[in-house]
Amino acid sequence: MEQRRFVIEASEAESMAKQSGLTVLQLLPTLVKEARSLARSPISNYYVGAVGLGSSGRIFFGANLEFPGLPLHQSVHAEQFLITNLSLNAEPGLNYLAVSAAPCGHCRQFFQEIRNAPDIQILITDDSNSNNCGGVAENGDANKYESLSHFLPHRFGPDDLLDKNVALALEPHHNHLSFLSDSNSNIPNGINSRVCDDLKYEALEAANKSHAPYSNCPSGVALMDCEGKVYRGSYMESAAYNPSLGPVQAALVAYLVGGSGDGYEKIVAAVLVEKEGAVVRQEYTARLLLQMISPKCEFKVFHCGLKSC
Amino acid sequence: MEQRRFVIEASEAESMAKQSGLTVLQLLPTLVKEARSLARSPISNYYVGAVGLGSSGRIFFGANLEFPGLPLHQSVHAEQFLITNLSLNAEPGLNYLAVSAAPCGHCRQFFQEIRNAPDIQILITDDSNSNNCGGVAENGDANKYESLSHFLPHRFGPDDLLDKNVALALEPHHNHLSFLSDSNSNIPNGINSRVCDDLKYEALEAANKSHAPYSNCPSGVALMDCEGKVYRGSYMESAAYNPSLGPVQAALVAYLVGGSGDGYEKIVAAVLVEKEGAVVRQEYTARLLLQMISPKCEFKVFHCGLKSC
Ligand SMILES: [Zn+2]
Ligand SMILES: [Zn+2]
Repeated sequence: MEQRRFVIEASEAESMAKQSGLTVLQLLPTLVKEARSLARSPISNYYVGAVGLGSSGRIFFGANLEFPGLPLHQSVHAEQFLITNLSLNAEPGLNYLAVSAAPCGHCRQFFQEIRNAPDIQILITDDSNSNNCGGVAENGDANKYESLSHFLPHRFGPDDLLDKNVALALEPHHNHLSFLSDSNSNIPNGINSRVCDDLKYEALEAANKSHAPYSNCPSGVALMDCEGKVYRGSYMESAAYNPSLGPVQAALVAYLVGGSGDGYEKIVAAVLVEKEGAVVRQEYTARLLLQMISPKCEFKVFHCGLKSC
Repeated sequence: MEQRRFVIEASEAESMAKQSGLTVLQLLPTLVKEARSLARSPISNYYVGAVGLGSSGRIFFGANLEFPGLPLHQSVHAEQFLITNLSLNAEPGLNYLAVSAAPCGHCRQFFQEIRNAPDIQILITDDSNSNNCGGVAENGDANKYESLSHFLPHRFGPDDLLDKNVALALEPHHNHLSFLSDSNSNIPNGINSRVCDDLKYEALEAANKSHAPYSNCPSGVALMDCEGKVYRGSYMESAAYNPSLGPVQAALVAYLVGGSGDGYEKIVAAVLVEKEGAVVRQEYTARLLLQMISPKCEFKVFHCGLKSC
């Protein structure tokens, strides 16, 4: 059976490198092929794998996701998957990245939400669509890393819009959101009311961790699979707006990272929590995506507001 | 009354430059402020203006558009507006660009759809959020242009996915689409049937000009305002998927470029044409955007397929 993992502990990364006579930095490109195998890209059949070394020494995987029947802006790039994976695992920073194809501009932009993004070191293995193992950097040449500031000079980023002390994407967020009083009465009665109530608070927690400093419209999604397991995703905003990652996308990354590897049709219930009257509103678009990937999934929306202390 | 223009003819550009004692390349940054005034960005209140010099010698303007009530991926950046404006006016190439803020990664990527994109020369005036006229390059220093290959080195682009002879974004497209035979019977009877029929063929024409070589799912939109004027928009795809510009967005650019400068609520009818069973499907997302910006707009969808010769 094929190995399916999304995080490698620091100690294991060290011993894997040692066994191969490599440094950890040389190990990263050798894992890109494994990361690529995690892609779910039925539109392009173009499989991208990203392997990141976090500041804790852990290694994280990312791969691209595509959703037929919808516009392409719903897609998740491997690098966005990776950043979401880092966030899910409370990894405070990303130092090195090996990726199978040149990161696109959209991803170079999305990376800017990480503190010290310009210093992230990137290596392109360029084995993206060949099946051989002899890509440009598959030999593990650690000299081929170059900084993100090289790949996206004169960046437009958080510095252009935020105070220096505002939390960035991998830093702790506490958005002080709670349910509006009349929102509680919206819980449907009947067989699913307890499940819905659980998911509602999970989605609120995700909204409270959402990175949305530009619009001030954080949101979160909680998904439940048919075994009752819950997966949370937090909306992650980009200073450049369009590359922002939706809360359903983030929750699907959690589903893939923490789940059994099954298809999206195993997702049976979903709750979105966002602000009442939000200027950036996820509801309708979230519903579209969920209907497309899991037509039987029950979807509810609850509104929240700032806690009055 | 404030001037509101989106294209300057080559001869006028020459004489404007001459009158100011500038070259045309020095003129471009002096027009950025005027371009910024065309922005409609009620979410960020961040106004971006882009001024491009086409290969014909004409000057084109672009500005950013934002749509409250929806996710940020529906936004149109100034550079995307500019490229759509070039396309609407059948401009074959873009050689120089002056822009008020550093182009984001998403836009640097979107530019890659233009032939010889790496050679496009870009100047950042950096006056984006100050109201003074003394930005970095407002003095018209033509030496400050740098190539797009500098701003997005090691690009991911059309070369990675397409044969060299496939048409790129500003090149002529003929997608050989026609209506499916049973699609004609879908025209609603009643007062709007003639209007709907007109719009349907305008939208088909837009779909036939759509740049969608990656998914092979071209689409087009035709909008009609309350005075009966029609605006066409063609879906424009990016090799990197997410930066793709939807057909409604393209048609809204046409509405702004060719219209009276009124609000979107003056749009009363819209038709989308896309392929039956398309793997990249615009319908639901187009409907969301139109409902948000013009709730009374009537929206119809027709399906097309490849002409059987
Ligand atoms: Zn990307
Ligand atoms: Zn941009």
